[in-house]
Amino acid sequence: MHEFDENTTKGAYEPTRLERLLFRLEAQHRCLNWAMGEIAGRPGPVFELGLGHGRTYDHMRRHLPGRDIFVFDREIDCFPDCTPDAEHLILGKLSDTLPEARRRFGGKAVLVNSDVGTYDEAINAEIAEVVSGALPALLAPGAIVLSDLPLTLSNAKALPLPHEVRSERYFIYRSL
Amino acid sequence: MHEFDENTTKGAYEPTRLERLLFRLEAQHRCLNWAMGEIAGRPGPVFELGLGHGRTYDHMRRHLPGRDIFVFDREIDCFPDCTPDAEHLILGKLSDTLPEARRRFGGKAVLVNSDVGTYDEAINAEIAEVVSGALPALLAPGAIVLSDLPLTLSNAKALPLPHEVRSERYFIYRSL
Repeated sequence: MHEFDENTTKGAYEPTRLERLLFRLEAQHRCLNWAMGEIAGRPGPVFELGLGHGRTYDHMRRHLPGRDIFVFDREIDCFPDCTPDAEHLILGKLSDTLPEARRRFGGKAVLVNSDVGTYDEAINAEIAEVVSGALPALLAPGAIVLSDLPLTLSNAKALPLPHEVRSERYFIYRSL
Repeated sequence: MHEFDENTTKGAYEPTRLERLLFRLEAQHRCLNWAMGEIAGRPGPVFELGLGHGRTYDHMRRHLPGRDIFVFDREIDCFPDCTPDAEHLILGKLSDTLPEARRRFGGKAVLVNSDVGTYDEAINAEIAEVVSGALPALLAPGAIVLSDLPLTLSNAKALPLPHEVRSERYFIYRSL
């Protein structure tokens, strides 16, 4: 059995579809757990960009009791038991809702989990630009951003992934 | 951060939705890799019951080059690149296709990966009964059966899961 190694050169072992999803979930789980530890004791809301089925939202709300978690998405298509209450749900296009969030949340968010990528690289580039442009104004100093797309955040630096993380595409930033 | 422990008593830590899927994929990955090692050098077809998105099928075909993998499902709803060719696709209700497979495959299958559970426990009980009734006639001696539902196979014994496996529901059998 081969083991996937991120350091393998092109043409070497490519993860299977089973492994791609497994490694992605592993990355989410490890990075979220690490990030939730990082923000312990630091007040401020958490943002979930892209609710999806609600799995990472469920994980965060379980481990961050009492913390406000605001979910930004265009529409809701999650497990019924993972639906945020209306006060924590900000529906609309990210290109509208994120810039608008500045008045309410400017400089306050301590953790952002962004899971908004699609299978379309052109769309991904657009979304990454929207998120990259809007997030800096929302982040508290030292905030953590986890993202499935590479971002260009003017006030944050990229952090290395925990070494066990095998996902091909997962990114961590910390604001200055 | 809590760690999920299968030995925790009821009322203790319940995995989140993120963890339930992660642990399930981990279980599939570890058990499939183990099972593919077990059947190395032993001729016979492999069965995939329930194609789903095709992730475990993709994993098996990658690691079992040259092995016939027959997919049983009611319909196809997988990633396009995970679609089996027509000769290896047996479409229809398992309650029809599995008993019919006896003429062609009786006593031949060396590995069966059964992933046919739903969120409906009543349906699951029915499917488990269909699979439990039909599989024994299809298995070669020493065949491995991996299943997301508990089965009652007249000619097989349950094996313990690899100890790293944290999934709540995953079952391994070996035919006598």
